[in-house]
Amino acid sequence: MPMRRRDLMVRAAGLGSLLWGRRTEAGGDPRPSVPDDPTKMLGVPPSGLGQRSAFEQPRRRVRTPLPAGESETPLQDLRGIITPADLHFERHHAGVPSIDPERYRLLVHGLVERPTVFTLADLKRFPSRSQICFIECSGNGGPGFRDIVQESTPQQVDGLTSTSNWTGVPLSILFREVGVRPAAAWFLAEGQDAAVMARSIPIAKGWDDAMIAYAQNGEALRPEQGYPARLLLPGWEGNTQVKWLRRLEVADRPFMTKEETSKYTDPLADCTARMFSFEMDAKSTITFPAYPAVLPQKGWWEISGLAWSGRGRITAVDVSTDGGRGWARADLDEPVLPKCHTRFRFLWNWKGGVALLMSRATDETGYVQPTLEQLVAARGAGTNYHLNNIRAWRILPDGRVFFGLARS
Amino acid sequence: MPMRRRDLMVRAAGLGSLLWGRRTEAGGDPRPSVPDDPTKMLGVPPSGLGQRSAFEQPRRRVRTPLPAGESETPLQDLRGIITPADLHFERHHAGVPSIDPERYRLLVHGLVERPTVFTLADLKRFPSRSQICFIECSGNGGPGFRDIVQESTPQQVDGLTSTSNWTGVPLSILFREVGVRPAAAWFLAEGQDAAVMARSIPIAKGWDDAMIAYAQNGEALRPEQGYPARLLLPGWEGNTQVKWLRRLEVADRPFMTKEETSKYTDPLADCTARMFSFEMDAKSTITFPAYPAVLPQKGWWEISGLAWSGRGRITAVDVSTDGGRGWARADLDEPVLPKCHTRFRFLWNWKGGVALLMSRATDETGYVQPTLEQLVAARGAGTNYHLNNIRAWRILPDGRVFFGLARS
Repeated sequence: MPMRRRDLMVRAAGLGSLLWGRRTEAGGDPRPSVPDDPTKMLGVPPSGLGQRSAFEQPRRRVRTPLPAGESETPLQDLRGIITPADLHFERHHAGVPSIDPERYRLLVHGLVERPTVFTLADLKRFPSRSQICFIECSGNGGPGFRDIVQESTPQQVDGLTSTSNWTGVPLSILFREVGVRPAAAWFLAEGQDAAVMARSIPIAKGWDDAMIAYAQNGEALRPEQGYPARLLLPGWEGNTQVKWLRRLEVADRPFMTKEETSKYTDPLADCTARMFSFEMDAKSTITFPAYPAVLPQKGWWEISGLAWSGRGRITAVDVSTDGGRGWARADLDEPVLPKCHTRFRFLWNWKGGVALLMSRATDETGYVQPTLEQLVAARGAGTNYHLNNIRAWRILPDGRVFFGLARS
Repeated sequence: MPMRRRDLMVRAAGLGSLLWGRRTEAGGDPRPSVPDDPTKMLGVPPSGLGQRSAFEQPRRRVRTPLPAGESETPLQDLRGIITPADLHFERHHAGVPSIDPERYRLLVHGLVERPTVFTLADLKRFPSRSQICFIECSGNGGPGFRDIVQESTPQQVDGLTSTSNWTGVPLSILFREVGVRPAAAWFLAEGQDAAVMARSIPIAKGWDDAMIAYAQNGEALRPEQGYPARLLLPGWEGNTQVKWLRRLEVADRPFMTKEETSKYTDPLADCTARMFSFEMDAKSTITFPAYPAVLPQKGWWEISGLAWSGRGRITAVDVSTDGGRGWARADLDEPVLPKCHTRFRFLWNWKGGVALLMSRATDETGYVQPTLEQLVAARGAGTNYHLNNIRAWRILPDGRVFFGLARS
């Protein structure tokens, strides 16, 4: 039944004014005030720095306070693949240090011909490289592995990962500058936070795609991400990508720092442990529909989420709406970049009953994201890192969505 | 001559403390205070929303106040290709309106089977698509075309362009939903700012890659970029990508709005005008070295900048350091995406004399960025839009850098 334009404009503008008051339905804080008709009022002038709309308040969730500082990216609020810098997850062991960029120094020494101290200006003068890639804390995903709480958001389950456009100097260039010696096999990366975070890295990663990053999403690194300079190791566990970097020591063996003996080693079921598990395995997580979203009606909905792999590109994401019995291929948004969040989408006709949504990522090495049972079989129930098992979201007939499988 | 680690650490930490006081050399504002040794002090705890370092204050430059509101992205301060949302350039004709997303409505009518009013929730329920692409004001680059001021920054010359990761619903999906009729040839896009910005768009672009965007770099659109929803026409002049979109009217002819008759039409040398010049032509601009940078010494420097084309991918950027006599191929940072800023880099050994730096972009259609002379020959000296002529940066023997060619 065609409508006249005037009728539609009344619906579009006038009726809106009648229906929407200044208070939320829950009777909470008053909604920000806006003019009834913005076409009748001059708007806000241009400004040096933009602000979010008063109606939009995305926030990281502070999971643990200092000294085990963590905050999580609100994955359920985000679209696309880029994480705004002020919502990038945080993980630090003694808080975020304050560093004057003009006093910043990076020492590179050990098995090198020319031990050298670099200023930040030195680092920025070298040839640069930019890359869009994810960082993920190796402890991300714990709430999806054990002690499942059904009132968990994507932020709480998998929010210790974010993607940025990083820029810096390739570490291979610094290695040539200082003359890394043939006997070099590892290097130590040490931060200048109060934890003096230190990790051992195989020298081959330094020659490959490692960089000393000084910019993030165009601008200078944010303080929480290592300002003024950090190690970036695309695809490797976040902890190795040492922030507030002050020292690289080249050596012929790993340094066995406290962070790689007391933490970041995966216990296995046979009471041994796998040490140096650098690469982040392929993983995917649905960000919509997910708790606390409620589907107001049955019908067509787009299931959407993120997939990524530390080993290269995502080649496929499969989605199941019946708890893993049937799977269908999801669409991937361009660009699909190596070692980067990839957005997947799957159009689903919800019939109105109980549904169990799952996603399963495959990367270009052929690695397939495992089930919980497969992950436990491989590493035991006591493992604490690299928890990339397939997640499940349960839709109830009333449209509510909860995390995890239904309990018996 | 090898140095001992302790010597180096003294240089890295101790000497820094001696050399750098709490005041800038110019005797201006005191530098932000930081601890002498951040490893001896617990840092800042995790937070809901990150803040920039106190040492970093990137800002848009407000070029013109209301009603001709413009602010420019600080290209010379940015790396990579993503523009932080709060630094995305602004261009609006009557300020930024404040809109309640729950009262937002989009009317689609005209030559359609089912005239429809969509809420924001309706738009978000449709299948989505994300794309990383640039937006550029069609008036960008005027300061590089006439009345050259040598004390011009990249921000002042070309700062009316930015790149974001946009997400929304493809317009083709809405077209199918409302049943666009076979006679449709154009559609009107109308905003709800106080200028009631309105432009006519060929229907083919709507069926191609147009989208109604509601997210930018992961989060909700910023108010200056059209919150809560805008038209996105990848590669086309910014003015057509109507923000705060409230109405699409499908028709069999263009609407000849005031914005496309009084503005956004290119006068030609023969006293005619070219009307509907939608696509932004291939362009490149050097962002370093550029005014106000000063090169402190001769030797190797990396020339860096941005290139983009509204017609697809950049295939090559050539750089000249002698005012256009010789050209050499620059490196392009991955990813090289269609209709997106592409970062180019060229390593240059500055001998210390006068140098004239230029960059020249080529896109996948074979189009080559023109010289000023070629652009004037094609469109006359009076043209005001699509000013993509090759820019020049002049290096003086003392290292200072100025915009434009040397004057006689």
